[in-house]
Amino acid sequence: MELLPVEEALALLLKQADAESIREHETVAASAALGRVLAETLVAGLDLPPWPNSAMDGYAIRHADLSGEPLSVSQKVFAGMQPVELMPGTCARIFTGAPLPDGADTVEMQENVRVLDDGRVSFLAPVRFGQNVRPQGGEARRGDSVLEAGVRLGPVELGLVASLGVTEFKVVRKARVALLSTGDELVEAGQALAPGQIYNSNRVLLRHWLERLGCEVIDAGVLPDDRQKICDCLDSLDDVDLILSTGGVSVGEADFLGQVLREEGQLTLWKLAIKPGKPLTCGYYRGVPLIGLPGNPTSTLVTFGLLGRPYLLRRMGIAEVEPLGFAVAAGFAWPKPGKRREYLRARLEQGKAQLYANQSSSVLRSVAWAQGLVVVPEHARFDEGELVRFIPFSELFG
Amino acid sequence: MELLPVEEALALLLKQADAESIREHETVAASAALGRVLAETLVAGLDLPPWPNSAMDGYAIRHADLSGEPLSVSQKVFAGMQPVELMPGTCARIFTGAPLPDGADTVEMQENVRVLDDGRVSFLAPVRFGQNVRPQGGEARRGDSVLEAGVRLGPVELGLVASLGVTEFKVVRKARVALLSTGDELVEAGQALAPGQIYNSNRVLLRHWLERLGCEVIDAGVLPDDRQKICDCLDSLDDVDLILSTGGVSVGEADFLGQVLREEGQLTLWKLAIKPGKPLTCGYYRGVPLIGLPGNPTSTLVTFGLLGRPYLLRRMGIAEVEPLGFAVAAGFAWPKPGKRREYLRARLEQGKAQLYANQSSSVLRSVAWAQGLVVVPEHARFDEGELVRFIPFSELFG
Repeated sequence: MELLPVEEALALLLKQADAESIREHETVAASAALGRVLAETLVAGLDLPPWPNSAMDGYAIRHADLSGEPLSVSQKVFAGMQPVELMPGTCARIFTGAPLPDGADTVEMQENVRVLDDGRVSFLAPVRFGQNVRPQGGEARRGDSVLEAGVRLGPVELGLVASLGVTEFKVVRKARVALLSTGDELVEAGQALAPGQIYNSNRVLLRHWLERLGCEVIDAGVLPDDRQKICDCLDSLDDVDLILSTGGVSVGEADFLGQVLREEGQLTLWKLAIKPGKPLTCGYYRGVPLIGLPGNPTSTLVTFGLLGRPYLLRRMGIAEVEPLGFAVAAGFAWPKPGKRREYLRARLEQGKAQLYANQSSSVLRSVAWAQGLVVVPEHARFDEGELVRFIPFSELFG
Repeated sequence: MELLPVEEALALLLKQADAESIREHETVAASAALGRVLAETLVAGLDLPPWPNSAMDGYAIRHADLSGEPLSVSQKVFAGMQPVELMPGTCARIFTGAPLPDGADTVEMQENVRVLDDGRVSFLAPVRFGQNVRPQGGEARRGDSVLEAGVRLGPVELGLVASLGVTEFKVVRKARVALLSTGDELVEAGQALAPGQIYNSNRVLLRHWLERLGCEVIDAGVLPDDRQKICDCLDSLDDVDLILSTGGVSVGEADFLGQVLREEGQLTLWKLAIKPGKPLTCGYYRGVPLIGLPGNPTSTLVTFGLLGRPYLLRRMGIAEVEPLGFAVAAGFAWPKPGKRREYLRARLEQGKAQLYANQSSSVLRSVAWAQGLVVVPEHARFDEGELVRFIPFSELFG
């Protein structure tokens, strides 16, 4: 069986996500909207700024009044005040952010004037018409689309919403994700470890990650390697947007989750040209989308970060779902090309990407050490110092 | 007055932060520790993995038993089971993650064997001693420092904590940050806008940002441009780790916050060689650290992101506080060198950094549009296509 290239798998998943985007919206207070997805384009209900105002501490003038003669000061305008119309042939003392008096069209900064003994102001430098004025509507005009539907609301977007005076708006319902692990070897932290068992790390990793992405997590527990119990559990999860599982998707006799999906569900993709993470299994179980992540922690991380995360974000209507990547110099050589695209845990040291020594897919410690993933394309070889693509973890976890 | 270079300002702030790091610790449950800072080095209380186990679905053998003859299968080991010792001259059927039987030292993947009609297993390829075995303690040995004090706990770190079976640990107390805005022009969203007023965006931006950084935010309100009221407010904030304000730090007559700090407090830095954000003002008021951010939204963002954020993270004991930056091609020319280091709002389009058309410090919309900041050093000029440093916003907001 031919392995599926990562970009084809991603294109397929995003196409599915577009077809199944969550259409329920809810109104939320702006103060509770961090991390949510805007459901409707946010249109400015006022000009931004609402009034022309000064970009500097200085003097507001009518440019045509400048004749080389000093001007007397007819008013003083602080931020938040409502000025009167500028008396012809005078200037107004004005401060940053203060509204421009009607009639004024230009501001000279205070560093470029001399205040005479009689209080009049002498302009020392050439003054350009309109300088240091922030025009009304210069940032946005009433009626402008300021944020598009499908934008994730971070601190900046919510600041922008506040600057428009908006206090509530519609957001996309959170994706409901049922999270489950399979594996007889898995024990939760806090319990005693019997011989052959290990503590479950994937569930903790994914729960926090999903919440950061703005999903609602339904804890579907840890399932034993028992086909009937897995079917019973999946049957009960008929009201979620996605079943996200870890483990049980390889080709071993006890990999029941993959078996169940292949035999009783609908398989849409399986076996990727990705390392780690080849057994990633996606499909539907009784109509509910299911992503079966491989159980090794680093495989879980790479497949969820590169494929599951963009899929889920797109389900919530987000347009930009792929992480930024950057060209960095490799601090290592890669002499032996591989058949799968490889994602290596790396840190930037003296400007070069250095690898964690143990790149085994079972070693989560490599990820805690690293700052991101170096992407090695299929069939690539390179020398130390050549440029490779680096995806910072901040781009995946935010 | 000479403007202070950004790196000198940062060095000064980090030195202050080191001298005033928060030393109170608290014990938290691992499930509630996302975003917190580890207060004590986390030492592995067990080997990770706790047992040698198989990295593949296949057959576990004693390498010395290989003679070219097929081996019979004496047991089957699933993940989570406790195997018996491997009978000499036989192999064990084994699956990924299952513990290696005592006596076995090597695993051959199932793709490289043939199972004969009598059930015996014939090994088709050369087998390397120890292959496909994950040794006990290969990720971490009992007693190893797995996470250092001063690490921020994200999804990965908490996954790693879980894999060690740890359910609670000590974290650094959250930094208590009093957030206040000054400016007669500021109105909160939801209120009516009188002439000359604008809606406050900085408070919303900073509140969400501070919470993301793991700080406790004390809302100290919006203060009018009134020296006495500002002093009264600052006097009341004697139990916080930091007073973070916006506005009132420039040289205008109504910039009382800067005046108060210069006259009644202790000024440690003022007037940076940074654009936007020159008036950034740092110091102490009655012994309490104060960072006075300039009031223009983009100035607030740049100065907090580049200076306030690392300072606050370091106060909580975090070692790595500076954002990653990457070399990208400029999609624009910069013919006129400036005297201040400039941070431009930019997006990556076809691999080049393109600027938002309006780089005015008052325009928060530029940040919502952008993906990060292009850093233009003092006195630099460059042509389109030359490499510039780019800081992704994900590195600042996480």
